[in-house]
Amino acid sequence: MKIIIDGMGGDNAPAEIVKGAVDASKLTDHEICIIGKSELIESELEKCNYDTDKITVADAREVIEMTDAPVKAVRTKKNSSMVKGLEMIKNGEGDLFISAGNTGALLAGGLFVLGRIQGIDRPALASIYPVLGGGASLLVDAGANSECKPDNLLEFGIMGSIYMDKVIGRHDPKVGLVNLGVEENKGSMLTKASYDLLEKSKVNFIGNIEAREVPEGVCDVIVCDGFVGNVIIKLTEGLAWHILKLLKKKFTEGAKALLGAALLKDKFKDLKTEFDYSEYGGAPILGVKGPVVKMHGASEANAVKNTIIKAIPFAEENVVEIIQNSVLDIEEIIISEQE
Amino acid sequence: MKIIIDGMGGDNAPAEIVKGAVDASKLTDHEICIIGKSELIESELEKCNYDTDKITVADAREVIEMTDAPVKAVRTKKNSSMVKGLEMIKNGEGDLFISAGNTGALLAGGLFVLGRIQGIDRPALASIYPVLGGGASLLVDAGANSECKPDNLLEFGIMGSIYMDKVIGRHDPKVGLVNLGVEENKGSMLTKASYDLLEKSKVNFIGNIEAREVPEGVCDVIVCDGFVGNVIIKLTEGLAWHILKLLKKKFTEGAKALLGAALLKDKFKDLKTEFDYSEYGGAPILGVKGPVVKMHGASEANAVKNTIIKAIPFAEENVVEIIQNSVLDIEEIIISEQE
Repeated sequence: MKIIIDGMGGDNAPAEIVKGAVDASKLTDHEICIIGKSELIESELEKCNYDTDKITVADAREVIEMTDAPVKAVRTKKNSSMVKGLEMIKNGEGDLFISAGNTGALLAGGLFVLGRIQGIDRPALASIYPVLGGGASLLVDAGANSECKPDNLLEFGIMGSIYMDKVIGRHDPKVGLVNLGVEENKGSMLTKASYDLLEKSKVNFIGNIEAREVPEGVCDVIVCDGFVGNVIIKLTEGLAWHILKLLKKKFTEGAKALLGAALLKDKFKDLKTEFDYSEYGGAPILGVKGPVVKMHGASEANAVKNTIIKAIPFAEENVVEIIQNSVLDIEEIIISEQE
Repeated sequence: MKIIIDGMGGDNAPAEIVKGAVDASKLTDHEICIIGKSELIESELEKCNYDTDKITVADAREVIEMTDAPVKAVRTKKNSSMVKGLEMIKNGEGDLFISAGNTGALLAGGLFVLGRIQGIDRPALASIYPVLGGGASLLVDAGANSECKPDNLLEFGIMGSIYMDKVIGRHDPKVGLVNLGVEENKGSMLTKASYDLLEKSKVNFIGNIEAREVPEGVCDVIVCDGFVGNVIIKLTEGLAWHILKLLKKKFTEGAKALLGAALLKDKFKDLKTEFDYSEYGGAPILGVKGPVVKMHGASEANAVKNTIIKAIPFAEENVVEIIQNSVLDIEEIIISEQE
């Protein structure tokens, strides 16, 4: 298997990407190919001790920037590391593509270069949601589709369920639908209709969940439209960061507090690792014809290494093929609901 | 002025409601009328020291329970403290109604008993959002309308702006629209169209905000549909509670941590008060023909007292009339957009 990693994507490219890829290559037998401006990548590689059989370089002369308009970037920057990397997957020259670059461009690239799995209406971005105190859930959709139909939420539940089982190793994962209340008849037109579809599917559907239950890890796959998913991910980041900042401020006011905080230093460190979700890998794009993983833009070498290693089953376990095989089920549920 | 308070609503009714009303009566010259089963209310009043001119009792023989289906409860329990209290406002026998009871029933009651302000399509529940580190924003809609049109989000922005100015005393309040990104052209069909309407309005519209900015208090009025608003409120509650629980657990593991935590005890207390938003009063229902305030179901006497006192300007400053006068502006913006 050959893993393609975008050497030019993210805030710390190419240095941390290269370091992370080299570190990952020591933990796997698969080849890792770093794509991007080859002179830059090779100059970073020179600083590392690596196996030339396991780390290779592919040249790509353009870079899609974080600020680029996604669709335009993918359409015009044909020689970018991202577009060329995705083309390698399409052409069978690679088995898994990972990028810390522009999320919108990666989604657009997944759609335009690889294409949708036939029968999947809306590919989705799935995001690991860290459960404080241990574990993680998978939130689908995390922002790819701000406008959704009930069919799409059914797809999200099924695709998320397959990923959670095959890649994260959570068997028969519990699927919950984000709603205004836990009662079956609650919610918007979208969530009410999605509830009925999910209930007919083979996934382990536990019903509605309220947003307050999300951080408790009440289910393994959190289903919602991309607008709500984006709000959940961003509000969680913003609020967690804000609370920690406030704690830091409070705990450094006065000598007594400073001493108390010093005694708790290790515990704060523990707490920070609770928010580090690179332990569970990156955010997969589900529903396109190839395994594509979005890595956090701020990823450093350790996160890059984790993301690569954790993403391997996405390709090895044939998740794309399993999703393809679930399409018939999806269609049957949708048709039975229309009858 | 006569304030009507629902003596039977909430987890701690009637005892804490009565205590809070008596405490509030010592801080205002207005009459406070407690409505509910009079023998229960009077038996609680007997335990208090109060002025019989300022605290009165109105009898209502039925109670709308937290578990009642809202619309049915309002339609069938005509003698409930909630329905009768709202009728007193309608008939001019009271100027402000406050309840800690069933939120859905209070919204339905506001609509059926008082009615919508003519020209307001969708009354909304506005909720105080505590800004950690000080202050508060007002989130509209917090869950009354899970299905919204752009016109409704315009109404939410205008009504929220009036409330924030007249009741909370935040002049020329900044209004932000929750969206997927801060750029003008981002978002769903709903948010894009709402952006255009809000920009044409007289409110101090600062544009899109991302969910991660909400806890920072980046604006005074947070505008979103009721589904997203419900997610924001509930996720914030759930996550804050979860982080504090986790801290407590971590900080009691081992003697060193226990000592550290003991030294920080005062700071933790400070932190808890940051989450206590009763300081800013309850959640107003905006867009119905009378001032109605929802109080948290778990309110104890101190929160009841605060909510009553903080809600007085809702009636005194003629907020309902000012919203009524803004309807022409709303209609002009909507018509100009359709041309």
